[in-house]
Parts: sequence; structure tokens; C-alpha cells
Amino acid sequence: MSGKILMLILDGIGDRSVKELEGKTPLEAAETPNLNRFAKEGENGLMDTIAPGIRPGSDTGHLSLLGYDPYEAYTGRGPFEAAGIGMDLGPQDVAFRCNFATLEDGKIVDRRAGRIKEGTEELAEAVRDIDLDVDFKFEKAVEHRAVLVLKGEALGGGVNDIDPHETGTGYHEATPLENSKENKRTARILNKFVRKSIDVLSDHPINKKREKEGKLPANVILPRGGGKVPELEDIQTKHDLNAGAIAGIPLVRGVCSLSGMDVIEVEGATGGLDTDLDSIIDAIIEGFEDNEFILANIKGPDLSGHDGKAKDKIDFIEKIDSSVGKLRELEETYIAITGDHSTPVTVMEHSGDPLPLTIWGEDVRTDDVDEFNERACSNGGINRISGGDLLNILKDLADLTEKFGA
Amino acid sequence: MSGKILMLILDGIGDRSVKELEGKTPLEAAETPNLNRFAKEGENGLMDTIAPGIRPGSDTGHLSLLGYDPYEAYTGRGPFEAAGIGMDLGPQDVAFRCNFATLEDGKIVDRRAGRIKEGTEELAEAVRDIDLDVDFKFEKAVEHRAVLVLKGEALGGGVNDIDPHETGTGYHEATPLENSKENKRTARILNKFVRKSIDVLSDHPINKKREKEGKLPANVILPRGGGKVPELEDIQTKHDLNAGAIAGIPLVRGVCSLSGMDVIEVEGATGGLDTDLDSIIDAIIEGFEDNEFILANIKGPDLSGHDGKAKDKIDFIEKIDSSVGKLRELEETYIAITGDHSTPVTVMEHSGDPLPLTIWGEDVRTDDVDEFNERACSNGGINRISGGDLLNILKDLADLTEKFGA
Repeated sequence: MSGKILMLILDGIGDRSVKELEGKTPLEAAETPNLNRFAKEGENGLMDTIAPGIRPGSDTGHLSLLGYDPYEAYTGRGPFEAAGIGMDLGPQDVAFRCNFATLEDGKIVDRRAGRIKEGTEELAEAVRDIDLDVDFKFEKAVEHRAVLVLKGEALGGGVNDIDPHETGTGYHEATPLENSKENKRTARILNKFVRKSIDVLSDHPINKKREKEGKLPANVILPRGGGKVPELEDIQTKHDLNAGAIAGIPLVRGVCSLSGMDVIEVEGATGGLDTDLDSIIDAIIEGFEDNEFILANIKGPDLSGHDGKAKDKIDFIEKIDSSVGKLRELEETYIAITGDHSTPVTVMEHSGDPLPLTIWGEDVRTDDVDEFNERACSNGGINRISGGDLLNILKDLADLTEKFGA
Repeated sequence: MSGKILMLILDGIGDRSVKELEGKTPLEAAETPNLNRFAKEGENGLMDTIAPGIRPGSDTGHLSLLGYDPYEAYTGRGPFEAAGIGMDLGPQDVAFRCNFATLEDGKIVDRRAGRIKEGTEELAEAVRDIDLDVDFKFEKAVEHRAVLVLKGEALGGGVNDIDPHETGTGYHEATPLENSKENKRTARILNKFVRKSIDVLSDHPINKKREKEGKLPANVILPRGGGKVPELEDIQTKHDLNAGAIAGIPLVRGVCSLSGMDVIEVEGATGGLDTDLDSIIDAIIEGFEDNEFILANIKGPDLSGHDGKAKDKIDFIEKIDSSVGKLRELEETYIAITGDHSTPVTVMEHSGDPLPLTIWGEDVRTDDVDEFNERACSNGGINRISGGDLLNILKDLADLTEKFGA
């Protein structure tokens, strides 16, 4: 009888030897009785999400975990962010992440317009009135963030960022990254969009009010991370799975949604260190009523990794540990516990260091590993695998694959 | 902050169980306190330079270690030997290794012309006067060796060896390996070159003198290992690294030089068992003033492997061990210690046996391995990787990579 599959992705969980932890990794230093029990009862190993030494983004990493070749499927961050906030995308569209920013005398003085929180919906409405040569959608996201989608055919995704990624300088002109008619057209439209965003935002009442209050006006839109919407084979077709995804951050929701997974809303799942872990675990258990495969991303460890805070990473890992025990209730389910990439506190960025991996389920070949961490798992029975093979391994364990050959 | 990278390639270091060493490998039998210390403080594993069971040459092995696919990049030994002795190569050129040999009554009686050492420059000058249908370069190399480069367009690299690789037989006619206009042209030119080499060498004063002294004359040039110069993407472009190479033998120097690495001259580095190891270690340390990445090849272990001499291999490994400790001085540097292939004394040739690998650096995930050898490293935290991934892994550790995605 076929079973079910859970990928529990602890975002950025992998780390390196940390001096202040006497050479341990945060995961080794943390008290994790529940995770360790999964390791002890499961089989263990290391996983290179994309390939050894390749530093995955959260987008390319999750693409690989879902069995897509990120070198083929990845066209830029924009489309995933757009899909992640629920925008409807056509296969010809080109999407950009955007910031509301502050321009003064031709220079960007704040890339986040004083981390503007209120009034962005009204500003977005004004932006939507811009007259461009193509249809477009513009939606605010969290705080100063927004998404721009240019609709229709004959548009290229290869243009540079308008966002200069620094202050005290002007914004960039869009130019085609590779010379094609389509990229040139996108660049021309994008430049017009940015100029017109200044026109409609500069004297907007919301900004007038902000200036009166001594706040920085959100008087320009800075697009970046442009890309054409990738044509991902639907996960139903590709893997013959009813699949659901739980993720706090738009980028990962976008990857899952563009691959045709059902994105499950979880109250209290913020993608931050304040996320409601019990709520996520409950949603996973409930989600298996409708799905054979669930991917759940817990963002916290990555945040502490980026901040270089070993103690915070340990604390959050221990919080995760105290919630995951309940997953043992799941029957006929194979659970993989791993990450999408390492975010070592010594690096403060994603890294290509391989991830610890535990696969738990009734009849897996157990090994001598009895702790869930980088070093312990490296001695496990799985040895070292590629992230692109993980879903196939789980499908095979759960008897959800077809035999190849006779 | 980004660090630096050293690949210390102990040529042919890998071996098999040797009966006379009570089943140990030479590396296991050797006393190697310094190498062991790197292993104890580092992470360890096995490496297949190209792929499991594939027996690498020193050329294809180093190509793989530098991240090139040898199945695409390798066109034959000739171009690497030519580059290795400093010849200037164009992208259309076809290069051959050559021997000065002795022909008697239409038969090759010595493929090395009595291992001729003196007078080869004068003989080469005579060869350079040959009138061919294309421009060509001809340079003597060490002892009886030389290199021929045919210049210009419309030349193919696919012709068989003129060198019969045995004595008592005539030399081979060049014929195209695959039928193409270019290969045919090269074959025609090469046959003309060989015939004319006999003309200009037979009565050359150097040979007259040799015969008078009872030495074998160097009266024919035997080309072999022909290949079109491969178009390798420059390592600066490919890996964004300032890279330097230290290698005693022309073949490895050629691979490094054709990939755009700066070949560092080291006095006393002979590529033999008499090489000055301390000098090499000093050159590595000094080389990091100008480079982010250094590959240093130490040829010795391979030579004893080819000779089948376990005791010599052990002795040379112990010599290496007594020199490498100084590398611990290198700060913010990730050091990989491994080989380019195994050369087991039981095989007396290169083999595809995987190599021991230690990666040492400040925050690597240490493991329980405390010896640098085949068996100990096989229990390490790295498990088993491909040689083609090594540079990516090191770049990732040293924070010299770009994130793929967001």
C-alpha cells in the first residue's frame, strides 16, 4: 500500500564548526531529543541540495528539492516573488521584485523609503494608473516591497536591476543583459515605468503627509530580479502527486505555487522567529487529508544564520525540536528532515556545505546514527546524495513510483 | 571575508593493499605525523578524480580538478606538452609530442635514440629548416623529447601516432582517425614532416659524431599524441580566481597554463624524487601574495608507483610529510590534500581507485578521522565526492562563490 511523504525543510539549518560553541555546529550544540529520535529510528546522511559546493538560493534550492533542474528552471527571483504573493501569472509575463524607495536630487537616499509600512496600497493604486505600452500588474507586498508584472508577448526577462543596491547614487537605467529584441523592449518599458512612477508618486498625498511627519517619501519604484515566468511542468504531471506546501515566505510559496502545489495557509506562520511552530505541525497533519506529499518550510534557522547569531539559531532549533515530536503520529508516512541550504553563522550567508538528512518511516534501513546533526548524519547509511534525488527516494519508499523497465 | 585556496596534489598518491606491507597501502605504512594532523583537524573523504573506476591521466585528472569536463576539454596530450614547455599556441594549432629516435634499415631500433641528451638543440634547428606546406614550430624538450606544432587553419587533430611504441618495426604512416578534410590534411603534412626529418637528420654532424662515438643517431622524429589546441575557458572567467600553479612536469604545467593559470617557477622543483620539497612549500606560501588559488603538484609518489616500488613510495611520502607542516602558517586558507589519480605499486600504472582527501581550514566540520590515508579518509565526513566538484567546494568554503538564486 502506498504511503505519504513529508519534506520538513529547516531553512538554512546546516552550519560549520563554531569557535564559541567549542567547535560544534549550532545543531550539534542544541538539545534536540525529538529530532534525535527521528535520526535514531531513521536512516541518515548528507545532502547537496544542488551539487557539492554550489551555494543555493531558497528558490533554486526548493526547485531542486522538488526535482526540477534549477539550471533550466530558474529565470530570476521576480516570478517566484510574484507567485508567492498570489499574483496570477501567464507564461509570457516578466516579473520584478520592487522596492518603494526615496529619491532626492536624482539620488537614492533610502532603498526602503524609511521602511514604509502604511499607505502603500494607496501608492500602488496610483502606480497602477501609469500608462505603459503593455498591460501590467503592480501589487504591494510586505512593508516597502512590491511586485511588478509586465504582461503579454514579445517581452524578455534579461534586463539589469534598476535598484542600484546602494544609496547616494542614482538609480540604474535598464539595459538588456543579452541583446535581443525582447530584452530591449522590456528595458524600454521598464525605464518608462520608473520615470512615470516618480511622476505619480512625488506629489501623492500619502507622501506629502509623510514629509510633513518628517518621514521619507516613497517617491520612486525600483525594480530588480527580473525574469520571465518559468514554464515548470506541473508537479501532478511530473511526479503524479497531490502536493501541498506550507511556507512563511513569499519566495518559497512562489516556487511551490508555480510548480502547481497547493499552498496551504497557516495562521500564525510568519516565516520569522516568532512563527507559530505548533500551528505549522498541526497544518501538516491536517494537510495529509488532501495531499500525498507535503513540503513544509520553516524559515527561522536561516534568519539566525544570516545574522551570525549562534545562540539564536540554537534557541530556535530547540523550539523546532519541541514541536516536531507530534509528527510521529503520522501513519504510513515517510518523513525527510533536512534543509534547503546551509546558512553558517560563520559565513552569515547561504553556503554549499552539505545538509544533514534524516529519513524516517516504518521500514527504512536504520543505521548507527542517533543524533540529527551534520557530523552524526555524515556517518549514516544514506551516505551523500543530491537534493534533486530526494523526492524520488521518498516516493520510492512510499511506493508511489512506477518501475522503470520490467 | 573571503579566504584563499590551496590544492596540494600528491601525484599518484592513492594505492591498494600491498602484500609486502602486510596489506597496508604505502600511505598507511608511512610515518606521516604532519599529514595526519591536517586530517585530524580537517574533514576527510574519498575523491574520484573523474568518475568511479575511470583511470585518469595526469592531464585529464588535472583538467577535472580545475573544474573542466575532460571528456569535452581533452583533445590529446600534444597541446598540453607544448604549452608545458612554454610554446605559444593558437586556437587552430595542432600539437604533437615527439621523440628523437633511431631508424635503421627502415626499422626503429631505439625509440629514444640512446636517450640522447646533448646536441638536440642543433638537431632541432635542422628540423626547423624543413619546408612544409604550413608554418610549424619544433622545440626540443627534456632529453630525447620534443614538441611539434603545426600552425594555422584547416588542420585536424585526429591522426594516429607515427611512433610505433615498439622497436624492430617501421614507423607508422599517419592516417586520419576520423575521415575529414582537416584530418587528411594533417596526416599528409605529418608524413611529409617525418620523411623530411630523416633527410635533414641522417647526415647531420651531431649524428655523425654520435656514430663515431658508438652512440645511436637521432635520425628520425616520431610524433605522437596529436591534438588540436583545446579552447579552455580561462580560469579567471570560469571561476573568477587569480590562480597560480606549481608543477615540475611539463604535462601538468601545460594543463594549468592552457587554463590561464600563472605557472610559478620554483628553483629545484624537478618533478623527480630529487625535487626540492621545501622550496615548493615556500613557493606556495609566497605565491599567495599574488593568488587566491594555488594548485601545487608533487610528482614523486607517481614515479614510485609506476616503478612498483613500495619502499620508495613510502620514503618519498615521508619526505613530503616532513615538509608540509609549514603550510599550517597559511592564514584564512582552505587546504585540500589529495591526488590526481592513484598509481598503485601493485598495478604500476594509474588506476581509478578513489583518492584520500583532507580539507583543512578554520571552520570546516571536523570528523573522527585522525590519519591521512585511503582507509582512514573513507570514514570521514565528506564521504565520497567527484574531483570535478572539489574546486567548487573549496571556493564555497573560502566564500569565493556567488549564490545561485536568492
